[in-house]
Parts: sequence; C-alpha cells; structure tokens
Amino acid sequence: MKSRAVVLVSRPHGVAQAENFAIREAELGVLPEGHVRVRNAFLSVDPAMRGWIADRGNYSAPVEIGSVMRSLAVGEVSESKVPEFRPGEIVTGWFGWQEFADVAPSSVVRRVKETDLPYSLALGVLGINGVTALVGLETIGEPRPGETVLVSTAAGAVGSAVGQIAKILGCRAVGIAGGSEKARTCRELFGYDAAIDYRGPGLAEALAAACPDGVNVYFDNTSGAISDAVWPRLAVGGRVVICGTASFSSWDPWPNGPRLERHLLVKRARAQGFVVFDYADRWEASVAKLADWVRAGKLRYSEDVLDGIEACPDALAGLYRGENRGKRLIRLTK
Amino acid sequence: MKSRAVVLVSRPHGVAQAENFAIREAELGVLPEGHVRVRNAFLSVDPAMRGWIADRGNYSAPVEIGSVMRSLAVGEVSESKVPEFRPGEIVTGWFGWQEFADVAPSSVVRRVKETDLPYSLALGVLGINGVTALVGLETIGEPRPGETVLVSTAAGAVGSAVGQIAKILGCRAVGIAGGSEKARTCRELFGYDAAIDYRGPGLAEALAAACPDGVNVYFDNTSGAISDAVWPRLAVGGRVVICGTASFSSWDPWPNGPRLERHLLVKRARAQGFVVFDYADRWEASVAKLADWVRAGKLRYSEDVLDGIEACPDALAGLYRGENRGKRLIRLTK
Repeated sequence: MKSRAVVLVSRPHGVAQAENFAIREAELGVLPEGHVRVRNAFLSVDPAMRGWIADRGNYSAPVEIGSVMRSLAVGEVSESKVPEFRPGEIVTGWFGWQEFADVAPSSVVRRVKETDLPYSLALGVLGINGVTALVGLETIGEPRPGETVLVSTAAGAVGSAVGQIAKILGCRAVGIAGGSEKARTCRELFGYDAAIDYRGPGLAEALAAACPDGVNVYFDNTSGAISDAVWPRLAVGGRVVICGTASFSSWDPWPNGPRLERHLLVKRARAQGFVVFDYADRWEASVAKLADWVRAGKLRYSEDVLDGIEACPDALAGLYRGENRGKRLIRLTK
Repeated sequence: MKSRAVVLVSRPHGVAQAENFAIREAELGVLPEGHVRVRNAFLSVDPAMRGWIADRGNYSAPVEIGSVMRSLAVGEVSESKVPEFRPGEIVTGWFGWQEFADVAPSSVVRRVKETDLPYSLALGVLGINGVTALVGLETIGEPRPGETVLVSTAAGAVGSAVGQIAKILGCRAVGIAGGSEKARTCRELFGYDAAIDYRGPGLAEALAAACPDGVNVYFDNTSGAISDAVWPRLAVGGRVVICGTASFSSWDPWPNGPRLERHLLVKRARAQGFVVFDYADRWEASVAKLADWVRAGKLRYSEDVLDGIEACPDALAGLYRGENRGKRLIRLTK
C-alpha cells in the first residue's frame, strides 16, 4: 500500500508558499516495533506553522528540509506494535502532513474520548485552538466577570473561542476582524457584544466606542497596526495575552512600532507571551471543559475544510492571505 | 516667620527646566485645625516628577499651575493640631518643595523609625527608591537564586538598590550605566558582577558577554536604545519590570522602536509596569527589611546633595542631564 506525504523542499523567507513543499509517494513498509500506524483523517493547518519552518530561531525546533511537514492530525490507529493503542482507536497527535504516519507513542497527544462529536474538532475547538484560547485566557488574561475582553483575529479558530469563553465567564467580548463579513460572523455566530472591521475607517474611534471603560484583557493574535490602536485603550491593570503576530509574515527585518513601555507603566499593565505547548498538564481537563461547552451549544465553531492532500502545499499561504473562514483543515478520508 | 516654596509657574513640554518654577516667600499663618506643620530637612528630586507635571495623562494627578511642586520630603514636626503627631517627631511624606509644610495627617507616608540612620535615607534607600527596587523586584521580577538580573540606570538611586538586592537574593547582577565612571561605581561600590557603559561601543556584544545564559530578570528604568539591546538577550521565561522610561524626555510625539511582541512570544516572557504607590501595604515591612540590610553593610547608597531651596528649580532638569551621582536631594536644614 502506498502513502503520500507533504515534504518541505526549501525554507521560506516569510510565509511558506506552495513551491516550498512537494508531495512524495512511497510504499508503506513494515511498521517498526514500538510504533503505531495512524491513518490520518484530518490534517491541521495552523498559523504557527510559519514559525516551525522559519529561517530564524523560534520556540520550536525547525522542520528539516526533506522532512514531512510537522502538523497535528487526527486519525484512526490502523496497526499497532505497542500495548497502549489498538487498531480502531481515534487518536490525535503529531502525525504530520501525510496519509499514514508510523509514530512512537510519544507523538500521540491524546486518545480522542469525545467520539460523540466530530473527530475534526480534535484539531480545532477541542484541540490546539480551543486549548490555546482557554488556557491563554485563564492563565494570562485572568478575566473577571464584567470586564471587557478584546480579541484580535476574532473570527479565527483561536479568536472565536476566546470571545465565546469570555462571554461564558461573564465578560463583555469585543472582537476585531478583517472585513465586514467576519465582523458580522463574530456578532451573529459567536455572540460577541461588538465586533469591529479593522479594514474600515476609524479603528481607534470604533475601539473607543466599543470599549467605553477601556480594555481589561487584550488577547492579541496579530501585533501590528491593530495592536497599535488597542494599547492606548488598555484599562489600568490590563492584561495582554501575546498569542500570535499574524500581522507580520516576517520578522526579518524586524518591524518597528510605537513603544509599549509607557503604556505598560502608566496602565500598570502586564503583557506575556503564551505558547500552549508549555501547558501540557492542563490539556486533558481543558478539552473536557471545552467539549461540555460544545455539547451545551455554548461554544460554536466554524471549519474551513479543504479536500485531499493536494490542498496542503498552498493551505498555509492561504491562511496568511486571510482566505479561510474558520479553522482550516485538510480532509483525507470520508 | 516666613517660609519659601517652589511653585510650578508653567507646564513644561518634556522635562521641566528651571524657568518652569519660581520661588515664592510667604508669612507662615496659623496652623489650621487637624493639620501638622513639618519643617522640611530634605526634599526629594525624582525622575517620576517629570510625569507629575507633564502635559499628558499620567499615573498621577497633575500638579496645578501656581501650586507648590509635589515632592516627598523628610522633616521634623514643628507644631501639631492632631493627636497622632507630636512636635519633634521625624516624618516623611508628601510635603512638597518648601521649607515648611502644613499638611493633613494623610500626607504623612510614615513616621521615621530608623532614627539611628541618617534621616535623608527616608527619601532614598529607605524610601521611594529602595521600596521601588525591593517590591518591583519581588512582585514582578521574581528572581530565583542563580538567575541573572540586569538593571538599567544601574548606578542610580533605584538601580543601585536593585543590583544589590539581586545579589542579596543570590542572583548574578549585571548593570548598565552611562559612562565608565558610573560603570566602575556599579562594580566597586555596589558589587555588581559586571557593569556595562552603554555609551561605549558594542552594547549588544557586551551584554552577550556579561549575560551568557541570557537575562532572566530585566529591571528596566530606561526603555529606548538600551532596552532594544536587552530584549533579544532575554532568557525563556524572562520577566521585565517596566519601572521607568528615562531614555525619553517626552512621549509626544510617541517614540517608535523594535516591536516587543515577538520577543514576548518566543521567550514566553512577561513585561509589567510597576508603580510603587500601588503597593502601600508593603511599604512598612519593606523599609524594615531595607534598613536591616543597610545596618548590616549589605546595602550601600550614594547621595547627591544640593544645598538650599534655591537649588530646586534646576534640580530635575539636572537629573535628566545625568549630572547626579546617586540619589539627588535638596538639604534645607543642617
């Protein structure tokens, strides 16, 4: 039996384009001892992938040229040579952009227990995106009922969960998204109290109107011009979760912007970088909490599903072009 | 009896100069009921005063034109119409740049109990500067033994205390100061493990050499070019205490600099603004701890004493010219 994989063939400067990848097909060999073979059902496409293949230091070891692109995936165990997993079990983990993955048990993040819900959620609202939203908000944002939580990329996979969790926690949720359609999705699908299209005129004025008491928690997925408009609106004692920097496709040359120190000082504010992989011990409990909210209809999600492994090479560049509507996934099996 | 006071006569744009102040003399009237009359012995000159009279929003209510310049001072109660204070007691508080201050008890920060030590210390190492250093380092810096603590304005009133407290707590202390003389003072008087003259060549290289394992805690009193060299050296999990922005005499126009978000994210670092007045409940215990260290010879200080109220108007501008050596004070009584 053959398996196809998406391999990194050149290192991008900035965002990876389709030509940085190639699809390779190879015969599946004998599963090595101590390994599990997973047939991937869905592959994840995440903004953080830019960093995993970047030509600069990052918080993750880089994917090597010639290697299968690193990715989270969800699939079914098709064969096992370890006692912990049996064929037929649904697992999610670091299985890469490929049809079949032969992995050690350490690459399995978790067994999917929420089998009453679509498996694809293990990559989104019940996976890296939902856990990022919940743990980032809880540990760094520390929102209190009645406070204003502002989210950039508010309609995205992480942002939409942040906004809804803020509402569940009794906060006022305000979103910033690109385009009037996404802003409307924020209000109508995800229940934000207010949503602002940053491409429209008067971002600063719109923020002032939507956050009359200032911003207590800013969940920042963008940096850049959006954040430049937000920082002056921070409330005293504000908390800023630095979760992503989607405004910049490259940090070489390093971009400049208005200095943050004076805002931090005058507002006695706190800004802290958040990388979800530092919080592995909170993963299982967080997924359980998120799943309960999904079942109760309190936590909605939106998926942007592309079909077939051929869609992988351009899928990441497409994220940075802003073409997705919801969590981007590649579906391999029906 | 007459008393002289330094009054704000015009609002500076940027750092206050001598011409923004005038010295007014007036007859001391009858002390109002419920008030205390303090004969000031020492007046404080602090970088934060720039903010108290600035033409932009700040963390303190602005000093009004025509008012006595706000300042901490230490002096002796000369007359009292409240039961809590008696003539002859030494007190420190918000007494302003004047010879005699008639104040309500709420303007008294504390009774000086460390009468075995020079009273002037109540304005420096046993006052706002020492408490800023200790509480800022403890609450936001959270240094652990063996970590590297880096301090900007390392020879200054706050910085020199930060460096020494870091050493007391078992850390490696590295200072950044302006000029080779101040750098030498850091090493020889204050016991820093290393001190860098930021005016010299190769600040980035010098930082790399002095902090081979990165910077765990950056106590930032400057922002600006110094901080731009420090942030790339932050260790994973680093903490940045944003205590002052001495590099900039004005934030109008707002200065730009390299964006911090990527450093915060990649290093999972935390930056937080610190204003000591938010921590009034820790003041008394902090002063007691600092005084013990002074008595034990573990915490040294340097004072830059100007004589007479006539020295006040230019004293703040002089701080920003970098002319002081140690905590700047105005001595009114011998």
